[in-house]
Amino acid sequence: MDTPRIVIEEQRLDANIEAMAAMARKAGVALRPHIKSHKLPQIAHKQLAAGACGITVAKLGEAEVMAEHGIKDIFIANEMMGPEKFARLHALARTVKLAVGVDSLEGAKALAESIRAQGSRMQRILDVLIEVDSGLRRCGVEPGKEVVRLAKDISKLQNLRLRGIFTHAGHSYGAADRTELEKIARAEGKVMVESAYDLRREGIEVEVVSVGATPTVAISAFVPGVTEIRPGNYVFYDAMQLALGVIPSIEYCSLRVHSTVISHPAPNRWVLDAGSKALSLDKGAHGHSGVEGHGIIIGQPQLRLVRLSEEHGVAEGESSLKVGDVVEIVPNHACTVVNLFDEVEVWHGAEREVWAVAARGKNR
Amino acid sequence: MDTPRIVIEEQRLDANIEAMAAMARKAGVALRPHIKSHKLPQIAHKQLAAGACGITVAKLGEAEVMAEHGIKDIFIANEMMGPEKFARLHALARTVKLAVGVDSLEGAKALAESIRAQGSRMQRILDVLIEVDSGLRRCGVEPGKEVVRLAKDISKLQNLRLRGIFTHAGHSYGAADRTELEKIARAEGKVMVESAYDLRREGIEVEVVSVGATPTVAISAFVPGVTEIRPGNYVFYDAMQLALGVIPSIEYCSLRVHSTVISHPAPNRWVLDAGSKALSLDKGAHGHSGVEGHGIIIGQPQLRLVRLSEEHGVAEGESSLKVGDVVEIVPNHACTVVNLFDEVEVWHGAEREVWAVAARGKNR
Repeated sequence: MDTPRIVIEEQRLDANIEAMAAMARKAGVALRPHIKSHKLPQIAHKQLAAGACGITVAKLGEAEVMAEHGIKDIFIANEMMGPEKFARLHALARTVKLAVGVDSLEGAKALAESIRAQGSRMQRILDVLIEVDSGLRRCGVEPGKEVVRLAKDISKLQNLRLRGIFTHAGHSYGAADRTELEKIARAEGKVMVESAYDLRREGIEVEVVSVGATPTVAISAFVPGVTEIRPGNYVFYDAMQLALGVIPSIEYCSLRVHSTVISHPAPNRWVLDAGSKALSLDKGAHGHSGVEGHGIIIGQPQLRLVRLSEEHGVAEGESSLKVGDVVEIVPNHACTVVNLFDEVEVWHGAEREVWAVAARGKNR
Repeated sequence: MDTPRIVIEEQRLDANIEAMAAMARKAGVALRPHIKSHKLPQIAHKQLAAGACGITVAKLGEAEVMAEHGIKDIFIANEMMGPEKFARLHALARTVKLAVGVDSLEGAKALAESIRAQGSRMQRILDVLIEVDSGLRRCGVEPGKEVVRLAKDISKLQNLRLRGIFTHAGHSYGAADRTELEKIARAEGKVMVESAYDLRREGIEVEVVSVGATPTVAISAFVPGVTEIRPGNYVFYDAMQLALGVIPSIEYCSLRVHSTVISHPAPNRWVLDAGSKALSLDKGAHGHSGVEGHGIIIGQPQLRLVRLSEEHGVAEGESSLKVGDVVEIVPNHACTVVNLFDEVEVWHGAEREVWAVAARGKNR
C-alpha cells in the first residue's frame, strides 16, 4: 500500500473512547470531547455513542462540518472576531445547540451587537462561556475577580447568556515530571471551582464548569464542582502522551503513520518518505514535552528520527532496514498529523476502510 | 474579510518570477523551478511563461496535479519506492515528459523492473537523474566515485536512461553568515561539475547538471558546467530568506498571512487566530535559520510571535493592537504555510482572485 499514510487501529481507538467515557461516568462529569484531535465525524459519533454530551471544537469551520454530519450540540472553545465569522456563527446557531468562548468585554460586545444587527428573524440569544486562564498564559481572563467582572459585564448584554466557565490547562504538556503534571491538574480544577464560587456569591448562575486536556482529566475530573471535561487527544494518544506518562505503553496509541524507506545513502542514515508534511514538526506547543526526535519508529529502538524536511524524514542510528521497507511511526502529536492528511485508513482486523478527514484544514 | 488567510501580492510575485528568470538567462542555465513552494498551477504557468524549461516537484502526487493542469515537462527531484507509486509513475510518463531521481542501485533496479513488468504497451524507457549529496546529508550518493559507480550500474539497466545529476544544497538554510552561505553555494556547483567530469571521463553522457535552492542559485548558477537551477521559494520569499540575507528587505515577500487579534488578556500579550495550523512551526529544517519567533508581524516591531499552538498565535511585547484588529504576518517558511491552506487570495491592486491550492497535501 502507498505511503505515507495514516492507519488507525479501530479496536484500540474504541477501547480508548470507552475508557475515557467510563472515567467520566466514574467522576460524575459530562464528557464533551474535543474533536480537533481527529477531525472525523465518524469518531465524533463513536464518542457520542459512548456517552459524550456533545462535542468541543476549536474553529467555527470545524463546527460547521460536524453539524453537517448530524452533530447537534457543539461548544466552540475559542474566541472569535469579525463580521464574516459572526454571520456564519448565527447561521449555525439556528441549526444546532451552540456555545462559544469569550474572554473580553470587546469580544462579548461585538458578538452581542452582531446578534442585534441580525434582526428579529434570527436567534436572539447566544450561549457563551468565559474562558479562564488556569496557567497556560494564552487566552482567558485571570481566575476570581476578573471572571466576576467580565461575567457582570456580560449579564448587561441582552443577547448573550452566560452558561459557565471553561479552561484548558495546555501547560500540562510542558510538565517536567509526574509531580508537576498532577499539581497542574489539581490547580486546573481548583481555580475553576473557586471562580464558580465567586460568581455564584455574586448571584451569577454557573451551569458549566468545564476543564480539560488529555494529560490532566484523570485528576481534574474528580475535583468536586467540576461539571465537564473536554479531552481530545485520548482517542489516539501519541509520543508526547507517552513521554508525559499519561499512558503506560505505546500499545495505547491507535494512530500510526506508515512510511517507506526511499534512501539509505550512508551506513547510519535512512531517509523515509514522511517528512514535516506528514509528521508535523510539533514537539509540544507548551514547553519541553520530553519527546526525542520526530516520532517513534516501531520496532527500531536504535533508530531516531532526527530531522524532518517537508518530504523527508531522516533517521539515524542502527538498523537492518533496506530501501523499500515500510515502517510504522507513532507521531509526536497525533492532532497536528491528522490535519495534514485528506484521509485516514481505519483497520479493524483484516477489514480496511478509508475515512475522509472532513474537518481538516478548517483554519477559519 | 475572514481570517486567517493567505494573501499573495501578484505584482511582487510577478517581479520575483521575472527576476529569477532574468538571472537564469544571464547565467546561461535552464530554470526548472520547484513548485512545492506554491503548489499552484497558476504560478507554475507564470514561471513557464517567463522562460522556465519545465518544473520540479517533490512528490508524484504534485506531478499528477501539475500534469492535469497542462504542464508537460516534470522532474520529480526525489526518490520513490513501492508498486503503487511505480504504477502511477508509468501512467503519468505516458502523458508528459518525466524524469525521476535515484540514489541507490536497489531503487534503480526496482524502478527498471517495474517498467519491464508493464509489458510492451507501456513506455519502456524512463529518464532518471542521480541525486548527489553536496553536503545536506539527506538523500544522495557521495560526489565523485560513488556517482560513477551508480551511473555504471544504471547503464546496465535497460529500461532507464541516465540524463544527468542533481543536488539540493538545503544546508544553506543553516548557514551562520553570508560567508558560509557563499561557500556552500560555490561548493554545490563545484562538486556537481566535478562529478559530471568524472562521469564523462568514463564515457557516460551527462546532459543535465542541476543545482538549486533559493539561497544558493545566485552563485551556483554561475559555476561553469552547471546547466540547470531548481529554486522554489523565490516566488514568495519569507522571514527565513530575509534572515539569511537572500533578499535585502521584507518588501520582496509576496505572501502574507492575515490574522485577527481574538484576545488581549494581559497588557503585553495578544493572541491571534493564526496558530501552527496556519503558520506552521517551521524555523528551518536544516539548522538554525536565524529567525526569531514564528513570523514577522508587519508594522509591529515591538511584537514577537513567541508561541504557536494549533489555533493560536501568542504575541508578546508592546503594541496598541486591540481585539478585532487584523494584522499581516510574513511567515518563517512560505512553502509549509501554503500546504496548510485550501486556497489563497491573490491581490492585484484592487482586484482580488481566489486560487485553489491544487497540489496541497500531496504526501504521496
